[in-house]
Amino acid sequence: MAVEVENMVDLADLSKEDLLALVDLALAYQDGQAVPTLKRAVSVANLFFENSTRTVTSFQMAEQRLGLQRFDVNVNGSSVKKGESLADTVKTVQAIGMDLAVIRHTQTGWYKDLVQDDRIQLSMVNAGDGAGVHPSQTLLDLMTIKKAFGHFQGIRVAIVGDLSHSRVAKSDAKIFKELGMELTFAGPKAWWSEDLAAYGSFKMVDELLPEVDVFMCLRVQLERMQAAGVATYTASDYHEAYGLTKERAKHLKDSAIIMHPAPVNRGVEIDSDLVESEHSRIFAQMQNGVYARMAILSRILEKRGLVEKKS
Amino acid sequence: MAVEVENMVDLADLSKEDLLALVDLALAYQDGQAVPTLKRAVSVANLFFENSTRTVTSFQMAEQRLGLQRFDVNVNGSSVKKGESLADTVKTVQAIGMDLAVIRHTQTGWYKDLVQDDRIQLSMVNAGDGAGVHPSQTLLDLMTIKKAFGHFQGIRVAIVGDLSHSRVAKSDAKIFKELGMELTFAGPKAWWSEDLAAYGSFKMVDELLPEVDVFMCLRVQLERMQAAGVATYTASDYHEAYGLTKERAKHLKDSAIIMHPAPVNRGVEIDSDLVESEHSRIFAQMQNGVYARMAILSRILEKRGLVEKKS
Amino acid sequence: MAVEVENMVDLADLSKEDLLALVDLALAYQDGQAVPTLKRAVSVANLFFENSTRTVTSFQMAEQRLGLQRFDVNVNGSSVKKGESLADTVKTVQAIGMDLAVIRHTQTGWYKDLVQDDRIQLSMVNAGDGAGVHPSQTLLDLMTIKKAFGHFQGIRVAIVGDLSHSRVAKSDAKIFKELGMELTFAGPKAWWSEDLAAYGSFKMVDELLPEVDVFMCLRVQLERMQAAGVATYTASDYHEAYGLTKERAKHLKDSAIIMHPAPVNRGVEIDSDLVESEHSRIFAQMQNGVYARMAILSRILEKRGLVEKKS
Repeated sequence: MAVEVENMVDLADLSKEDLLALVDLALAYQDGQAVPTLKRAVSVANLFFENSTRTVTSFQMAEQRLGLQRFDVNVNGSSVKKGESLADTVKTVQAIGMDLAVIRHTQTGWYKDLVQDDRIQLSMVNAGDGAGVHPSQTLLDLMTIKKAFGHFQGIRVAIVGDLSHSRVAKSDAKIFKELGMELTFAGPKAWWSEDLAAYGSFKMVDELLPEVDVFMCLRVQLERMQAAGVATYTASDYHEAYGLTKERAKHLKDSAIIMHPAPVNRGVEIDSDLVESEHSRIFAQMQNGVYARMAILSRILEKRGLVEKKS
Repeated sequence: MAVEVENMVDLADLSKEDLLALVDLALAYQDGQAVPTLKRAVSVANLFFENSTRTVTSFQMAEQRLGLQRFDVNVNGSSVKKGESLADTVKTVQAIGMDLAVIRHTQTGWYKDLVQDDRIQLSMVNAGDGAGVHPSQTLLDLMTIKKAFGHFQGIRVAIVGDLSHSRVAKSDAKIFKELGMELTFAGPKAWWSEDLAAYGSFKMVDELLPEVDVFMCLRVQLERMQAAGVATYTASDYHEAYGLTKERAKHLKDSAIIMHPAPVNRGVEIDSDLVESEHSRIFAQMQNGVYARMAILSRILEKRGLVEKKS
Repeated sequence: MAVEVENMVDLADLSKEDLLALVDLALAYQDGQAVPTLKRAVSVANLFFENSTRTVTSFQMAEQRLGLQRFDVNVNGSSVKKGESLADTVKTVQAIGMDLAVIRHTQTGWYKDLVQDDRIQLSMVNAGDGAGVHPSQTLLDLMTIKKAFGHFQGIRVAIVGDLSHSRVAKSDAKIFKELGMELTFAGPKAWWSEDLAAYGSFKMVDELLPEVDVFMCLRVQLERMQAAGVATYTASDYHEAYGLTKERAKHLKDSAIIMHPAPVNRGVEIDSDLVESEHSRIFAQMQNGVYARMAILSRILEKRGLVEKKS
């Protein structure tokens, strides 16, 4: 059990109370709450085995704001190329003195064996695992919704786009439902994934527009469209059929917000002008992301007794 | 107008007075002037879309000396590979909390639309744009000349080498002329570029040796020689025809200085021994570069009110 | 002579007394000795021309603990790709203001000309040179042995595996012998290297098991086995013939320790379970490595007068 509280690999491991407290901590940091004081120098290794710009930079900023000593480990370096296992890489950075490791890896569930390994005592943060989950993205999405509506119960969320490849869809859906939100999904039917049926139903995109509080677009990759048998769609075909066009945006409620995990394909999953519209929270999500990651990291620091108790 | 003073994308945007003050600020830093005190933590993203060793390291050192929090963004990461525009990458790092971005990009004039974009409020520093300008290089070249001669008016400068591909030639020529320097150009005639005619005339290299105060070699790339129809030249042919040989160096004035933007092809554009000769300011230019970049960055910090006023 | 004491390119340059003092300094850091106070900001460039994960991260941690400002120079950047020599790259980072450079390079003896170059005043640390030496690895190996046995005289060490390609074998053997240790070597005879004969004899692996205090496995690369004419061996063939199997480990003395420079091929040069056995010091070596590098760097800082004298 100690393992679960000192890592952060899947938000589903948290109780509802702990999760809500984490959202509130992130919002408090955004509102200016001071970061905790470290008892000693604390080091964090960023191990990104899958390319990233946004997520790694956001984690680095969060680490900087918490006063952590950050090490961006070159995982394309020789040890990893020489076939070292992830477990051995993690034990290596632990031996070198890292207290935490932020890890993105292409293997779904990379952390499952590692959190059971008694020899791993550094804290692991999952920054995305293959087709698995993306806890810091889900947390920033929750912050974004809480800021817009003040609560989660009964909020209607549409998730639209590449449902079968998106780590975000799967990561968000389970948590959103647990918090009382109502989900619907849309996009090419070929991408509908039956394991999402537990969280909500599939609808036509035009049907759900007037009903939703949150319209969350997912990134579309044209290569995947072709591979998935939706090959007749070009980028503009996709935009007309499933994208958030200006015309469709008119049918959204005034209070509805538009979200997207980014990077955005402007003119494909969303009209370019809508990215910066009043409904859009897309750049706000990126801002929120830094505070979400500060919350995740500082929660771990606190559990491990690495920060001073508040007086 | 506010946009122009808070970015630094082209020295030609500065008034002559502001430019001279910037040179003097850089020289003052070199002479030991204390750096300003930051009012709060200030973060800078280094976004180098074109490979660099010297320029990026020099900016990093300048950032460190100013006490900035530096983030070297992996622009080969997924967002950029996924086709994100430069504008969206800049807005992303801004959303993550960066106050400044130092950007090198292969696209000439990458900054032109961005400085007009009201949604971009972070300060951009141009670290080289395609075949455009290279403000921090020009500033360090100005420092080097000011240190050698005390003034700019009437200083005779020869720029010799690959005039058509060098960002440095174009970047320096306009500014040097504005400051009253007299320019001549030399090198393979195939590389003479008519848009340089506004700043000075083309001469044979042997003709200008005894006249000049500054002999600035440009880097030559053999691949380009062949593509440009000067294919008969090998490296040693080039050296004999246009390079600064030991023999040619004897015809320079005693007070003349040798400059080169580096990296140097020893034995091609300049004899290897001359790189470390008394005339040479080549390594001095690299030293000056750190102070030039400190001046550029601290000027922006001051304009934005991020540093304490001097008492 | 000043050059030799202010760089650290080969432990063989040290007197026996200095070397033993360096081991003790590393052990003292591990036991909690405070790091020296820097007199001014000190900058270090990490120049890794050969891929590395473990060594570079370990040096970065050592630099951080000493309070150095660290710069990870992208040596795949343009200057180096454009064919700049190592000497010019080093002079460049020196001109930019680096006080130290930690360098790994594929060229054996890369430092030999550079330490003779009067224009290079920054301190160079050899983090591995081609088929040459690896001083910080040898130092951490010495720490590991000193911790286990309290002394070096008469300690029997077996070095087993790819003797012809391993930088570690050559680097360690000479120093170990000088300190009075007794060496034997084992592994495929095709890899026996006559230049090791000066330090010890070649034996069959099964023969030396009961005799040794230290069993040091070297990493094996299967590609090299095939190239070297030991192509009949698969990984499991190698393990049976030369690896430290569980069966072989039973013949080690109770007090014997197992070492490996890592990364480990589990199941090839050593049985996977033995990596974490009580005999194993493999992860301890990685821990020791940070303190070894702190000792190397702080020794240089002290020699250069960059730290406060102890009161």
